[in-house]
Amino acid sequence: MKRTLGVCYYPEHWPEAQWAEDAARMAALGLTWVRIGEFAWKRMEPVEGSYDFDWLDRAIDTLGAAGLKVVLGTPTATPPAWVVAKHPDMLPVDADGRVRGYGSRRHYCFSHPGYLAECRKIVTAMAARYGSNRHVAAWQTDNEYSCHDTVLSYSQSAAAAFRDWLRQQFPGQGNDGDIDALNAAWGNVFWSMDYDSFDQIGLPNLTVTEVNPAHAHAFRRFSSDQVVAFNRAQVDIIRAHSDAPIAHNYMGRVTDFDHFKVGADLDIASWDSYPLGFLEDRSGTSDAHKRAYARQGDPDFQAFHHDLYRAVGKDGRWWVMEQQPGPVNWAPYNPAPLPGMVRLWTWEAFAHGAEAVCYFRWRQAPFAQEQMHAGLLRPDSAEAEAFEEAAQVTNDLADAPHVAPVQAPVAIMFDYDADAMWAVQPHGASLSYFGLVFDWYRACRKLGLSIDILPPDTRDFDGYALVLVPGMMHMPDDLKTALAAAHGAVVLGPRSAARDTHFNIPTPLPPAWPGSDLAVSRVQSIRPDMPIDVAGGGQVIGYFEELTGGGDVVLQTEGRAPVAVRCGDGVTYMSGWGDDTAHMRLIQAIAPDLDVEIMPEGIRRRATGNEVFWFNYTTQDVEVEGEKLPPAGVLRHVRPAMS
Amino acid sequence: MKRTLGVCYYPEHWPEAQWAEDAARMAALGLTWVRIGEFAWKRMEPVEGSYDFDWLDRAIDTLGAAGLKVVLGTPTATPPAWVVAKHPDMLPVDADGRVRGYGSRRHYCFSHPGYLAECRKIVTAMAARYGSNRHVAAWQTDNEYSCHDTVLSYSQSAAAAFRDWLRQQFPGQGNDGDIDALNAAWGNVFWSMDYDSFDQIGLPNLTVTEVNPAHAHAFRRFSSDQVVAFNRAQVDIIRAHSDAPIAHNYMGRVTDFDHFKVGADLDIASWDSYPLGFLEDRSGTSDAHKRAYARQGDPDFQAFHHDLYRAVGKDGRWWVMEQQPGPVNWAPYNPAPLPGMVRLWTWEAFAHGAEAVCYFRWRQAPFAQEQMHAGLLRPDSAEAEAFEEAAQVTNDLADAPHVAPVQAPVAIMFDYDADAMWAVQPHGASLSYFGLVFDWYRACRKLGLSIDILPPDTRDFDGYALVLVPGMMHMPDDLKTALAAAHGAVVLGPRSAARDTHFNIPTPLPPAWPGSDLAVSRVQSIRPDMPIDVAGGGQVIGYFEELTGGGDVVLQTEGRAPVAVRCGDGVTYMSGWGDDTAHMRLIQAIAPDLDVEIMPEGIRRRATGNEVFWFNYTTQDVEVEGEKLPPAGVLRHVRPAMS
Amino acid sequence: MKRTLGVCYYPEHWPEAQWAEDAARMAALGLTWVRIGEFAWKRMEPVEGSYDFDWLDRAIDTLGAAGLKVVLGTPTATPPAWVVAKHPDMLPVDADGRVRGYGSRRHYCFSHPGYLAECRKIVTAMAARYGSNRHVAAWQTDNEYSCHDTVLSYSQSAAAAFRDWLRQQFPGQGNDGDIDALNAAWGNVFWSMDYDSFDQIGLPNLTVTEVNPAHAHAFRRFSSDQVVAFNRAQVDIIRAHSDAPIAHNYMGRVTDFDHFKVGADLDIASWDSYPLGFLEDRSGTSDAHKRAYARQGDPDFQAFHHDLYRAVGKDGRWWVMEQQPGPVNWAPYNPAPLPGMVRLWTWEAFAHGAEAVCYFRWRQAPFAQEQMHAGLLRPDSAEAEAFEEAAQVTNDLADAPHVAPVQAPVAIMFDYDADAMWAVQPHGASLSYFGLVFDWYRACRKLGLSIDILPPDTRDFDGYALVLVPGMMHMPDDLKTALAAAHGAVVLGPRSAARDTHFNIPTPLPPAWPGSDLAVSRVQSIRPDMPIDVAGGGQVIGYFEELTGGGDVVLQTEGRAPVAVRCGDGVTYMSGWGDDTAHMRLIQAIAPDLDVEIMPEGIRRRATGNEVFWFNYTTQDVEVEGEKLPPAGVLRHVRPAMS
Repeated sequence: MKRTLGVCYYPEHWPEAQWAEDAARMAALGLTWVRIGEFAWKRMEPVEGSYDFDWLDRAIDTLGAAGLKVVLGTPTATPPAWVVAKHPDMLPVDADGRVRGYGSRRHYCFSHPGYLAECRKIVTAMAARYGSNRHVAAWQTDNEYSCHDTVLSYSQSAAAAFRDWLRQQFPGQGNDGDIDALNAAWGNVFWSMDYDSFDQIGLPNLTVTEVNPAHAHAFRRFSSDQVVAFNRAQVDIIRAHSDAPIAHNYMGRVTDFDHFKVGADLDIASWDSYPLGFLEDRSGTSDAHKRAYARQGDPDFQAFHHDLYRAVGKDGRWWVMEQQPGPVNWAPYNPAPLPGMVRLWTWEAFAHGAEAVCYFRWRQAPFAQEQMHAGLLRPDSAEAEAFEEAAQVTNDLADAPHVAPVQAPVAIMFDYDADAMWAVQPHGASLSYFGLVFDWYRACRKLGLSIDILPPDTRDFDGYALVLVPGMMHMPDDLKTALAAAHGAVVLGPRSAARDTHFNIPTPLPPAWPGSDLAVSRVQSIRPDMPIDVAGGGQVIGYFEELTGGGDVVLQTEGRAPVAVRCGDGVTYMSGWGDDTAHMRLIQAIAPDLDVEIMPEGIRRRATGNEVFWFNYTTQDVEVEGEKLPPAGVLRHVRPAMS
Repeated sequence: MKRTLGVCYYPEHWPEAQWAEDAARMAALGLTWVRIGEFAWKRMEPVEGSYDFDWLDRAIDTLGAAGLKVVLGTPTATPPAWVVAKHPDMLPVDADGRVRGYGSRRHYCFSHPGYLAECRKIVTAMAARYGSNRHVAAWQTDNEYSCHDTVLSYSQSAAAAFRDWLRQQFPGQGNDGDIDALNAAWGNVFWSMDYDSFDQIGLPNLTVTEVNPAHAHAFRRFSSDQVVAFNRAQVDIIRAHSDAPIAHNYMGRVTDFDHFKVGADLDIASWDSYPLGFLEDRSGTSDAHKRAYARQGDPDFQAFHHDLYRAVGKDGRWWVMEQQPGPVNWAPYNPAPLPGMVRLWTWEAFAHGAEAVCYFRWRQAPFAQEQMHAGLLRPDSAEAEAFEEAAQVTNDLADAPHVAPVQAPVAIMFDYDADAMWAVQPHGASLSYFGLVFDWYRACRKLGLSIDILPPDTRDFDGYALVLVPGMMHMPDDLKTALAAAHGAVVLGPRSAARDTHFNIPTPLPPAWPGSDLAVSRVQSIRPDMPIDVAGGGQVIGYFEELTGGGDVVLQTEGRAPVAVRCGDGVTYMSGWGDDTAHMRLIQAIAPDLDVEIMPEGIRRRATGNEVFWFNYTTQDVEVEGEKLPPAGVLRHVRPAMS
Repeated sequence: MKRTLGVCYYPEHWPEAQWAEDAARMAALGLTWVRIGEFAWKRMEPVEGSYDFDWLDRAIDTLGAAGLKVVLGTPTATPPAWVVAKHPDMLPVDADGRVRGYGSRRHYCFSHPGYLAECRKIVTAMAARYGSNRHVAAWQTDNEYSCHDTVLSYSQSAAAAFRDWLRQQFPGQGNDGDIDALNAAWGNVFWSMDYDSFDQIGLPNLTVTEVNPAHAHAFRRFSSDQVVAFNRAQVDIIRAHSDAPIAHNYMGRVTDFDHFKVGADLDIASWDSYPLGFLEDRSGTSDAHKRAYARQGDPDFQAFHHDLYRAVGKDGRWWVMEQQPGPVNWAPYNPAPLPGMVRLWTWEAFAHGAEAVCYFRWRQAPFAQEQMHAGLLRPDSAEAEAFEEAAQVTNDLADAPHVAPVQAPVAIMFDYDADAMWAVQPHGASLSYFGLVFDWYRACRKLGLSIDILPPDTRDFDGYALVLVPGMMHMPDDLKTALAAAHGAVVLGPRSAARDTHFNIPTPLPPAWPGSDLAVSRVQSIRPDMPIDVAGGGQVIGYFEELTGGGDVVLQTEGRAPVAVRCGDGVTYMSGWGDDTAHMRLIQAIAPDLDVEIMPEGIRRRATGNEVFWFNYTTQDVEVEGEKLPPAGVLRHVRPAMS
């Protein structure tokens, strides 16, 4: 697959007279793709049932005539006012019980059947009209599911659908579920919380004190399933009319629905990469780290999502659907990227296997919510800073090889359901599954390793020298079996296998590893300012389990409490949340054959099937492979194809 | 009274087949008490009016047969779903107007008459069945009144009851109250806030800006009275059927109802002592202090509540009903106790006069909200760390004397109504009455003093060398008279006698001490980073009053403003909130005959009638009385009985 | 106009027997004015339509007989309970959708027609009775519009009125507006947000993510207009009955309505100056700054408002209607003023042209919300600390000249609409228009300059050596023309002229200065801990624009990016938010003829037509003009009158 570039474009925002020139400039820039349509419902269906696609026909024609391929988005993230007027109870409700009103976007509850019907109608109309359009080369469903925290909705529709979902989870006689089974599974005896019927079950918000974690967790699973069903409804319609691949554009650090399940219904995964906004807004890192990378973005955040969404994409197909081109409008602080970073980010995506990188957006809009969001062009159509960097990538690509997938030496399992479990029960302030997995990812990257992220249903670990499965709170037995049989080194813990599927602590105590008596005897969360020193270097931070049983101790605290313990052939359980040093030490101890190399601060390495890349995320020149790599510099070595 | 141990147990959580073995292990551990039943309403009354006590009969029989005494709890903190379905408006409402829903516990408004009737029914059924059961040796009403901030409810039921309560406070013609009297008492003329009738009076939440403090304060008094009435309703029923003593288990740092008034209806006060959770969650101390005591708890917090609840208990009878045995689940960070602390906490309770200390809980539950809360046993029934420490206490107790009450040399008055007044009008950010009294308590403890806490209706101060009455905003005249006549040194202020009973500043200006012209002329709250130096050592922090009149100046600022001034024979008024040094200096200056001894950092001393105890709250060995006291160490010297 | 003193008094709070003595003491203190009545609606109209003015007649007679002049306030900030009972939907609603209830003050929505009618009735009754009373020498409308954030109300009344207001802004056929024009002006195409009719338009709160800034901004303009209309209704009634001047008492740092528009209907502007409360509560300054000025107040905050309200007052007439006399009750910390500060604050007001300074309040109230707010008298009628300082001012005034207005050398434009625009779109956390303008003001003051603040409709800049127009996001073309023609140096930016009137980015890009190709090419907000160094000294903080075009570069960053650039004859555009040093350097560079003098830390200078004042805001002696000025000291040099 050829590496390509694209851009997001909104013909409805501009005078029709400008379209042809825009298209010509896009083509001249070397772009292949142009994504359109995803916010234009009101223009397509100004009045219920009365469609106006003529303008869109002309827009697609104009773009296609310039040689561009269109990615056509369904507009269901922005229902017009008339839809809301018709279905006033379709609005989502937040955890405080407040209706989240009309006036921006994503103002719908995934559980509202009336809204779903409206979506089916508009998607059907679009698919029928454009399913065989030769310029429409791909589709996008909706836009950024969960953006603005829109997956968890506490509406009446959600409550009704949740009860129905629970009846399915605990099937009983006839159409009703087995409420006794639910009570037993959730341990509702605890505080006399047993229900007499499913009709009594409410949503897990606004309770006097914390709700049963089984209840909260079930609601998160349900909410995730609602997204999957919502997306599938659109996919089914599009497929009936079109052979073009279908994508969705996911966001960064969004974990409240199972992307693997949504991804299973799609052809391509894509994500919207805003390195500077994400650093400020959701990286959870220290102020010192934010200062160091304020204009470059976190050096691992993009790569992590690239690797994650490669796993989400069918057969590893994935794109960056929206690439930050300059300052954004939505973070607490919105600096400009360091010169060169737009090119670096683009190349980093290609290095991780992206087929396409599309810039968001073509021209900065002078009106409405994102008027402070940069584009490739300024509002006056002059070239913005990113335009030149995109042109440079086009130039770079002339002699670059195609996408060459290759298995990485290291695998990290990522389980959205585990993230939900941690969210329900973090145990310590600000602890999260995403944070734990990301810390392991960063440690691997500091060792220069390339990484594959694996979905939780992976059972074949062949070819991996190291498999990391930290924090996966529920582990099915067959996963344990598969991991126990893996050839590479396996790392579990903390919290791996700590719960059964309904959020109960199993007996024997976790991790209950096949053939091992290792047990988590006691669990602590610890103050951030009281890390525990690991003998020989590194620290345990935030979370620490006390262990009994098990085999050889690989790491221990200065006080001789075990930190990493063997619990099987090649399997090591780590009982604490380590800092980078502790994680790196453990990796080196248990997987000595890995080709590791401590990266200079802010330098990252990534190997594809036929290339090795180095990226300089710092603001200084750094010597890499005997060359002086400038700030935002990209070094690419082509190597013979290897598996 | 013999010192005894006990445990909290939930037979309904475990297979019946396990009960006998559990009971045997409890007895073997040396436990005397087992508290059961307080969350089991749904098991006792699965359907309205249809009781099932058979299982509870068997559980009590099993425990009793093992030699254990049962404390039987009424289950009114956890009304089942059918109760809420029958009385949907029984749910409490928070200050933001949000209904606090079903799904956890304490989901009831104290003012709802329908819910009170349901409580009477279940308590009557339990009392009738178990009132003469030979194994039921004590009762507990409900569970942790006010936990999860459940005393102040802003429901319609509360509003109606509040109006009726006000009619009683300001009685008028016939059944109605005298609204003019209320308007005058509250100063409603201030912003044209006069009411035409009691029907116009709302709850003091969600006003545009601050509400009249008299209004807010009346609501707090009312809310406290609702708890008293709710508890009394249960007590009256139990007493009609049982001679066993009745207790309630209070919480730490809960001040929003008058425990003395609730306690007056009960036989035994008890409280739930979670030293590590309280340190992180509600101690209000600095991060450095939290780090120093993260695994031991604040060295004065438990002792303060021991002394407080000894005063709340009838004739000084009090227990620890729930003692933290390991990590809890509910604080921001949940570390494990330092080895030895569970024993130390237990002995500290005995040193302060506890009859019994019960561990919470027997076995860690693998399900529901508290699955991360340690017990004496792990979920797999293996012994957890605290088990061995409890066994050690059993061993220690073999040759220990019985509870020997003795009057302490120092008394501190504690007035829940004053705490309400400070809560309504802190004047400075984060200032509280509890905090002020606790700071005085800590200063006394750093001087090695044992302390009695006195209820606000105390008028006999005989035998106390020092009586501290800081911050008691309303002081009745007869209290002033009694304090003026006390033989020991008396310390007032700041804010003592600052308001009349309806929250008005009296004239002559406070403290209006009999025979003194001392007056608080002006009041300041000061930034935490701008303490005022006291000449000779110590500082005034947070709050400072300027004084006129009065007698000798005992302490003054570096700028020669009076800080502590004589206002009567043996009576000193302190105009500022002092730090420990300032408080200790004042005590030494005005009560020179007290047997004080500066305690080493983190060491605390407590004398009973026939023993002296030292406790090491630090993580280091400390030399005490010529011995090396290890971390978590307890030193006990038996001495001849003395009054 | 003679400089005079006054006081705020509430005869309804005190026994009638006390009035005459109070009046005599006021007169003896040298006071001229006594403001009364503004919270006494319930006393004037205890029952709907039944007036009781007898007590007020007697109060006015008593005060007048003592030689005092009465400022009579309309009581519409405190509608009595019966008004709310009659109009339950008159209560304001906050942005979270919560009704802001009865029980304090300002509990009305400006858009409620029923409440407006009630106001008209009480004001008519007062005006009819006192319009020709010889002692009523001035009026005050309502009290502190916007205090407690009461301008923006999200009620149903506000929504209906907002839609009507929009119909006026976008007039169409018949009575309805032109919804297409609104959609086009707001760029509603962006996210399919086009409305089909005005009836669909909601208020801009509780949307899923940020609302269209054009929508939010329109709502702020509307809300401001509602205040103007509400105030005008009262003014019209009073004028029909009285020739006395009418004032309103504005607050500090309140920017959510256009004071210039309200002021245009009044005769005198006044404001309520609480230097210590404002420093802690709304200065937005650092802890170090707050510590340095905790007992003095920010050295520029009062002066800024004096200059601002001089511009708001018709013909420059303005007062301080409420002057802090001691600790207040409402800030996080409420220290006492440094001795002398009450006098300093009073003289500073006179130095900036105040006709009168009235202390709030005569006697500290021992009841209700403000019982911790100091007065000139203590609650027991003894003199409080401020009494003596007021007496000293009376003494000072004996030989002081009258108010002598003079044009300052420096002008700063202040535009409430620009503040609304920044509030809607700050772009960086905590950035505000007020903050930017205030930083410029402070820089001028550190240079010893006197300043005039100008309303945004100013077109004549004659006589100003320097005109500062930072951050004025929308600039009408005729303002640009007038500034381009100004004789003095003009400073624009950042963000000046950045938007058209409907919040769109104009093309050509801002500032689109006549005759210049200077353009803001890209905009960044930057972390507070990442300031950008300006070559030669100073820093850019918070906000930074990248420029193209323009003329000479006056300031640039260390990295040679332009910071201040010429864009016309005498016109300079500053692209960043500078620190004091950067601002001071620019002023000195572009206006070299200004008579600047770097003030010692905490010393401020102000010149009137015939005097020069220096004020010592520090806690140290400082040498000024060869004299040692003590803390809180005021130095006044009389000079020959000059223009």
